[in-house]
Amino acid sequence: MINVTVWNEYRHELKSEEVSSVYPDGIHGQIASFLNADGNFTATTATLDEPEHGLTEEVLEKTDVLMWWGHIAHGEVSDEIVERVYKHVMKGMGLIVLHSGHHSKVFKRLMGTTCNLKWREGDRERLWCINPTHPIAKGLPEYIEIENDEMYGEHFDIPRPDDIVYLGWFKGGEVFRSVCTFSRGYGKVVYIQPGHETNPTYYNEHIQQLIKNAAKWAAPEQKQEPKCPFFPSLEENK
Amino acid sequence: MINVTVWNEYRHELKSEEVSSVYPDGIHGQIASFLNADGNFTATTATLDEPEHGLTEEVLEKTDVLMWWGHIAHGEVSDEIVERVYKHVMKGMGLIVLHSGHHSKVFKRLMGTTCNLKWREGDRERLWCINPTHPIAKGLPEYIEIENDEMYGEHFDIPRPDDIVYLGWFKGGEVFRSVCTFSRGYGKVVYIQPGHETNPTYYNEHIQQLIKNAAKWAAPEQKQEPKCPFFPSLEENK
Amino acid sequence: MINVTVWNEYRHELKSEEVSSVYPDGIHGQIASFLNADGNFTATTATLDEPEHGLTEEVLEKTDVLMWWGHIAHGEVSDEIVERVYKHVMKGMGLIVLHSGHHSKVFKRLMGTTCNLKWREGDRERLWCINPTHPIAKGLPEYIEIENDEMYGEHFDIPRPDDIVYLGWFKGGEVFRSVCTFSRGYGKVVYIQPGHETNPTYYNEHIQQLIKNAAKWAAPEQKQEPKCPFFPSLEENK
Amino acid sequence: MINVTVWNEYRHELKSEEVSSVYPDGIHGQIASFLNADGNFTATTATLDEPEHGLTEEVLEKTDVLMWWGHIAHGEVSDEIVERVYKHVMKGMGLIVLHSGHHSKVFKRLMGTTCNLKWREGDRERLWCINPTHPIAKGLPEYIEIENDEMYGEHFDIPRPDDIVYLGWFKGGEVFRSVCTFSRGYGKVVYIQPGHETNPTYYNEHIQQLIKNAAKWAAPEQKQEPKCPFFPSLEENK
Repeated sequence: MINVTVWNEYRHELKSEEVSSVYPDGIHGQIASFLNADGNFTATTATLDEPEHGLTEEVLEKTDVLMWWGHIAHGEVSDEIVERVYKHVMKGMGLIVLHSGHHSKVFKRLMGTTCNLKWREGDRERLWCINPTHPIAKGLPEYIEIENDEMYGEHFDIPRPDDIVYLGWFKGGEVFRSVCTFSRGYGKVVYIQPGHETNPTYYNEHIQQLIKNAAKWAAPEQKQEPKCPFFPSLEENK
Repeated sequence: MINVTVWNEYRHELKSEEVSSVYPDGIHGQIASFLNADGNFTATTATLDEPEHGLTEEVLEKTDVLMWWGHIAHGEVSDEIVERVYKHVMKGMGLIVLHSGHHSKVFKRLMGTTCNLKWREGDRERLWCINPTHPIAKGLPEYIEIENDEMYGEHFDIPRPDDIVYLGWFKGGEVFRSVCTFSRGYGKVVYIQPGHETNPTYYNEHIQQLIKNAAKWAAPEQKQEPKCPFFPSLEENK
Repeated sequence: MINVTVWNEYRHELKSEEVSSVYPDGIHGQIASFLNADGNFTATTATLDEPEHGLTEEVLEKTDVLMWWGHIAHGEVSDEIVERVYKHVMKGMGLIVLHSGHHSKVFKRLMGTTCNLKWREGDRERLWCINPTHPIAKGLPEYIEIENDEMYGEHFDIPRPDDIVYLGWFKGGEVFRSVCTFSRGYGKVVYIQPGHETNPTYYNEHIQQLIKNAAKWAAPEQKQEPKCPFFPSLEENK
Repeated sequence: MINVTVWNEYRHELKSEEVSSVYPDGIHGQIASFLNADGNFTATTATLDEPEHGLTEEVLEKTDVLMWWGHIAHGEVSDEIVERVYKHVMKGMGLIVLHSGHHSKVFKRLMGTTCNLKWREGDRERLWCINPTHPIAKGLPEYIEIENDEMYGEHFDIPRPDDIVYLGWFKGGEVFRSVCTFSRGYGKVVYIQPGHETNPTYYNEHIQQLIKNAAKWAAPEQKQEPKCPFFPSLEENK
């Protein structure tokens, strides 16, 4: 079993009927729900307004993969928790950053860039697989249709990804590196673009499969502490 | 002409006769000297103990490429200046991180990892080119010998480089990704491993050529501000 | 001056009035023309029906960058000439493969894959830059509009490119890795997707600039013969 | 169960007592033996002097992963069988190329380069992991010692690998990209450098684990035929 902690800032759902009608249990609730229904995951949730944002050392220690959805409250996430999450990624915890999490402190901390992009609400998207042998694409069709999602367009200011698995096409005229992976320390990081709060993207079966594939891929074999040791020479070792 | 600012924490040279006998004008002085002798560069210097570490907005604004040497005083570099350097890299300023600068706040800010490695003083090194068509390798032999340098060994905890140009071989039994490149925002970053403070590495003609090649490669065409704009659709644009 | 040889199979232009009205001097003639007007290139042409397809040892020996346009007659290119071109790329000759050259023997020889893709004539394209610091993007806007070109869509069966510089967006619903680079031996290879024979793509100033940038980038410093030598050990070398 | 076919040219073992004393059942026999003892693999063998080199359509059709060891008889492998192997890799068959297989027709066909390198017999090697989260490194120590193996040194004339998992260090003064991966078509390719015919490398438990990890990683989910279809536009699809 892979232990997943689904983190959500959980503000849109409490403020907007439009959003809460799509995600009555919150975005985190919906994601945890389809993960728990799968049989390979034990998913719990954590939100911004819990103590320590729900991300205590104990929670992160037993988390194999952390998922992150945030948007309007990135600035309220404490730097201490960001550093804590960073340290757990360094040790091997997987991290899956969803949609508007591109501007989260956690993602920018790990990328070292602004993570800026172009945007526009309400567009039709197609996600095209350009890496069909990648485990994240397993069992999925060559493209995934999303009737309505927020457009995120290039230039996306990220470091060169290790792998680009899907490219996004938007009817309004843009393209995007929509699903891409990065190794950071002993941890694996996946960015997944679809998932605007007013759209039922996390009910789409293909997107659910993609997120589950990503969680399996990002789960660590084992965690280990990064070290910086003095190292004796071959001769001294004898 | 490419404007280079050579930054050095400049502490070893003031404390240790062993170091000052090798670099009487400081490591920064020696690097600026061979850059200025080349004809393609205008090199100035900046050090930790100057106001704002010598890296005012005005200095960085006119800097095409910043070089960074630091070791025992990484913690004394102010977070404000680190953020300032980061912003200039985002806009396109090139950055060349030298030797023990691997643990500088600036490099770790841009990498998003611990940048840990193995180390040992006093080893023989050979730098092997694995990317002979890269501009950083231009005019250089297939390997560069360094009689005595500090061993830096794998695993080097960095994100996957865009390009690995040289691999380091150490007599004592280690290998290292010794010269590698990263794009971050509109800026180009190069890490170059040789250059311990007690060794005359920066007098080696091949290393000088390598650093000059790296500075030419990292210099921006033009700087630009990262943006995150609303972007109208094809139809709305008409 | 960079010596460019522009190779074209030159069949569409002789058979179809639609094509010859767009390219009265052949696609090769139009490309050589804008290269020669630039001042940095000396461009000559070669075509399929010349002896040795116009690609003698002498021609290739003095060629810095070979451009390749082919479509309906890939099978008529002799295996001997393909092998000759391959050997010159190994030694450092740059190669720029244009549009339907994706299925040329030369490109498939260098890629080791089928180079298959999806296709459809007559679509609107936008080329988005995802690598703004790459020399191939120098001086170009963040996207290039092409009113009418052939759609080439993913999955494009190529090895992972060293760099993806532009992604193509097509109005009909597809994306493509439209401008990408590969190192092969001492040579640099660029694939550039736009340029269907019935469309005036090679008159587009941005596409001309992109091709000129690619030729500058792919030109070798110097050519050298690949070797596979016995190599004595450090001790034996002394 | 993963179906592995271990191919060996099987000539050294028949000609040289030195080799047959190390590998009395052939290199292929030893590799198949430790694979079959594992429980996750069904390994069979094929050799050069069998009809069709033992690689009939039927054999390749049911092969998940093909391993390839060759050295003195690369030229005797028929072009027809090379093309057959290539086509199966395109459809998804994994390929693991061992040691001197770097100069096999099959590997060069897939790489599109000369695959040249430096070499010398009888050196001590250390394999350093630079990609500790890669499945090929699972369960292995940070370095693997090989008391005696053939030195293969850079520059190794291969396309840029998708992933470099291990770097080789040689006592005599060289480094090498010793374990690296490439995607080609729907297939995954792994090159693994250790394994000279006169050394008992394939009895080393870590090397055995590494080869088993590589076979698991390279096995396809499912094979599929590469296609190049006309593709209707979004509007026409409706």
